[in-house]
Amino acid sequence: MSEQTAQKTEPHDAVEVIAAKRDRHELTDSQIDWVVDAFTRGVVADEQMSALAMAVLLNGMDRREISRWTAAMIASGERLDFSGLSRPTADKHSTGGVGDKITLPLAPLVAACGVAVPQLSGRGLGHTGGTLDKLEAIPGWRAALTNDEMLAQLEDVGAVICAAGSGLAPADKKLYALRDVTGTVEAIPLIASSIMSKKIAEGTGALVLDVKVGTGAFMKTREDAEELARTMVDLGTDAGVRTVALLTEMSTPLGLTAGNALEVRESVEVLAGGGPRDVVDLTLALAREMLAAAGRGDVDPADALADGRAMDVWRRMIAAQGGDPSAELPVARHTHEVRAGADGTLTRLDAMAVGLAAWRLGAGRARAGESVQAGAGVELRAKPGDAVRAGDVLAVLHTDTPERFERALAALEGGWDVGPAGAAATSAVDVVLGRTG
Amino acid sequence: MSEQTAQKTEPHDAVEVIAAKRDRHELTDSQIDWVVDAFTRGVVADEQMSALAMAVLLNGMDRREISRWTAAMIASGERLDFSGLSRPTADKHSTGGVGDKITLPLAPLVAACGVAVPQLSGRGLGHTGGTLDKLEAIPGWRAALTNDEMLAQLEDVGAVICAAGSGLAPADKKLYALRDVTGTVEAIPLIASSIMSKKIAEGTGALVLDVKVGTGAFMKTREDAEELARTMVDLGTDAGVRTVALLTEMSTPLGLTAGNALEVRESVEVLAGGGPRDVVDLTLALAREMLAAAGRGDVDPADALADGRAMDVWRRMIAAQGGDPSAELPVARHTHEVRAGADGTLTRLDAMAVGLAAWRLGAGRARAGESVQAGAGVELRAKPGDAVRAGDVLAVLHTDTPERFERALAALEGGWDVGPAGAAATSAVDVVLGRTG
Repeated sequence: MSEQTAQKTEPHDAVEVIAAKRDRHELTDSQIDWVVDAFTRGVVADEQMSALAMAVLLNGMDRREISRWTAAMIASGERLDFSGLSRPTADKHSTGGVGDKITLPLAPLVAACGVAVPQLSGRGLGHTGGTLDKLEAIPGWRAALTNDEMLAQLEDVGAVICAAGSGLAPADKKLYALRDVTGTVEAIPLIASSIMSKKIAEGTGALVLDVKVGTGAFMKTREDAEELARTMVDLGTDAGVRTVALLTEMSTPLGLTAGNALEVRESVEVLAGGGPRDVVDLTLALAREMLAAAGRGDVDPADALADGRAMDVWRRMIAAQGGDPSAELPVARHTHEVRAGADGTLTRLDAMAVGLAAWRLGAGRARAGESVQAGAGVELRAKPGDAVRAGDVLAVLHTDTPERFERALAALEGGWDVGPAGAAATSAVDVVLGRTG
Repeated sequence: MSEQTAQKTEPHDAVEVIAAKRDRHELTDSQIDWVVDAFTRGVVADEQMSALAMAVLLNGMDRREISRWTAAMIASGERLDFSGLSRPTADKHSTGGVGDKITLPLAPLVAACGVAVPQLSGRGLGHTGGTLDKLEAIPGWRAALTNDEMLAQLEDVGAVICAAGSGLAPADKKLYALRDVTGTVEAIPLIASSIMSKKIAEGTGALVLDVKVGTGAFMKTREDAEELARTMVDLGTDAGVRTVALLTEMSTPLGLTAGNALEVRESVEVLAGGGPRDVVDLTLALAREMLAAAGRGDVDPADALADGRAMDVWRRMIAAQGGDPSAELPVARHTHEVRAGADGTLTRLDAMAVGLAAWRLGAGRARAGESVQAGAGVELRAKPGDAVRAGDVLAVLHTDTPERFERALAALEGGWDVGPAGAAATSAVDVVLGRTG
C-alpha cells in the first residue's frame, strides 16, 4: 500500500484506517477527520466504510475517538444557531419505544414553562413509530419547515416539531443507510455519534436523552442502555451541550395506544389533564429535566399542564404548521377485539409484540419512503397489574386493510400472560445520568 | 428484518448472516452456501460481504465452516478432472516470497520422476513476483492454454505451468478483489479458503504447500504461518486431496536473484546441476514431498536433476507453450552496483527490502494489469553468512528505467547488516505438516 499512498494527494487511505481499527489501535484525530470526510465525498467507498464499521463494532472506540467522530459528522454539514432567541433552548431525544408519544405533549409543555423546544424528528422504520408520522395524522399538518420558519415559530410559539433538514450531518445519513444493510447498526459508538451529531448540529443548548431498555427497545439489557446513555452524555458534554440521560423501561408499551392517530388522541388527553398515568409521569419527569438543564429548574411543569397553558401551546404549534387542532382525527375502517381467555391478573404485555402488531396493521413501514395508515394501530384496554376476567377485551386492533389482522394477531401471540398473581409494575424512570443540579 | 425476509424467495438474507458471525455464532452450512452463491450472483452487495469478511477476520471460523466456505467457492465455478491421465498428479503452492522461483525447476523435475504437475499460476502484485511474469521473460512463451491444451500437455510432457482460467472459483476472484481494498486480506480462514478453493477446483490429486514465514513473507510470525498451514492441510484433507505443508524461511531472499529473467536464468542453472544451494535444497525437498504424496516416494528426484532428465522436461515444457528454451533472455539496459562499506560478515539481508527494491526497479506491478520489465530486478553477490570486504559488490540492481534507482536504493537502505560475527544461516525447511508416510 505504501507505493500507492505516496502517489496520492489524500493524507490517508482507507485500508490504512481500516487496518488500524482492525488491529485494535486508536484512530488518530487526523484519520477520523479524513475517513468521515472522504466517505461523504465518495473517496472512501461503501465497502470500505462497512468494513470499518464492523471493526468499530467489534473493537470499539474510546471517548476521544467517539467525540472526534461525532465532530467530523457535524462538520460534514450545516449547524443551526439558536443563540439569538430570547429564551433558552432544550431538546429531548428518545431511542425509540412502543407507544412512545411523549414528544407530543412534552414539547408544548416545556415551551409553556418558558424554554424553547427545537425538536427535529424523523419518520419511523420497523416496530417503533416516528413522531412525524404521528403528527401527520392531524389534517393539514406539515413536517417540512425552512430554517427561518423554524426560528420564527420558536420565537413566537416556543415549540416546533419538524423534519430534520438534509443539511444536518449528511455523513450520518449516508453512514446510517449503509449500517442498516451491513449488520453494523448495533455499535454503541456509532449509535451514540449518529444521534448526537444531529442533536449537536441542531444547536440546542440543553438535551435530555430518554434511553429505553427492555424487550421493545433497541437496547435489550440495562448494561448496554447504560453504556449508550453514558457515551451520549459524554459526547454532549464534550460539545458544550448540557446533557442528561434517563434510562426508562420499555418492556411494556407506554400508555394505552400504539399507532399514529391513536397516539395523538392520547397525547391530547394528557394535555387536557387526563391520559394514562405512565405517560403523564414520564412527560413530567422529562420536562423537569429539560427545564433544569436549561436553567429553569424552579418552574413546575405540573402547573402548566393543570392550568391549560401546555394545551394552548400545543394548539398554536399545530396551527403554525398548517394543522387544524380541532379537526377530527382519522379512524381506521376495521377493528378486531382480542379477549382474555381466563380470569386473573395481566402479568406481562410485551412491548415488542404490540409494536410488531401495530406495524403489521399498517401503522409503520418496512422500508423508508413507504406510506403509513393514520388510523392503524393497537389500543390496549389493560396494562400489566390490571385484573381481567375471561372474555374481557384486552386490546382492539385497528386497520384500513383487514387482511392484515392475521399477521398482527400472530405477532401478539404469546405476547401476554394472565396469571394468578399481580406482578409489580416497573417504574418508568430508573437511572439518571449527567444531572449536575 | 423478519418482515422483509418473509417477502423474499432467498432462503437467507445478508444482515442475518453478517449478524450471526458478528455475534460469534457458527454459520450454518446453508448460510455459507447461500452467502457465497448470492455474493457471486450480486444479490449480496460488496458492502455486505466486506462487513462479513471483517467479522470473519475478527471472530474466526471453525474447521467445518472453512471447509464449507471453500466448497461453496469451488461450486461457484468449474472443476477440472485429471483422473483420466495415465500418471498421478501433484501440485505445489507457495504463499509467496522474494526470489521464490522454485516452481520453475520443480515442475519439470517432478514430471521427470513420473508424476504429472498441473501448475495453475498467477501474476505478481506487490513485492513478490508472479510465476507467469517470470516465464513470460522467455521469448515466445504464452501463459494462456485451453483446458484441452493443458490436458494434452500434461499427458505428453508431464508438466504445465499456465494461467488459471477465470472459470475456477469465480467467487474467490470477486472476494479477493474486495478484500484487497477493505483491509480484510489478513484473515487466515479467508486466505486458506482462497488458495485451497482454486487448488481443489484445479483437480490435483496431491498438493504440497510451501508456507513462507519471515520478514519477506505474508505471514510474519511462525504462529500465524503454522495456523495457515494447518488450516490448508485440513481443507485439502477434507476435500480428498493428499495435502502436505512445509513451513519455510523467508527472512532473506531465496537464491541470488529477484526479478523475472534473472530468476529464469537461476532456475535453468539449477536444472543444469548448478545454482544456489538453498534453491537446490528447497526444490529437492518439495519434489520429495510431491512424489511421496502422489505415491512415488521411492523415486529420488536428485537423480533426475543430476542426469539431465529434469532439464529435458523443462525444454519440452517451454517449447510446448511457444517458448524458445535456447533463446537469449532479456537483459536490463542499466545496472547499478551496491558495495559493502566495511569488512566483516553479512549477518542480515532482509527479504522485504530486496523484494521492494526489485519491485521498484520494474520487476513487479503496483496495480493489476500493469506490465513488468523482463530484465529488471536485484542480483545478489553475497548472502547472510558470507564474508565481505569494504568495496565488495553486495548487489547489482537492474532496470530499463534508471530514474527508478533512487527509490530502489531507498528500499534497500537499512536492509542489510555487515558485522564482526557470522550469524547462523537459518534452515530452509523447518516444519512439515500433514505428511502421513
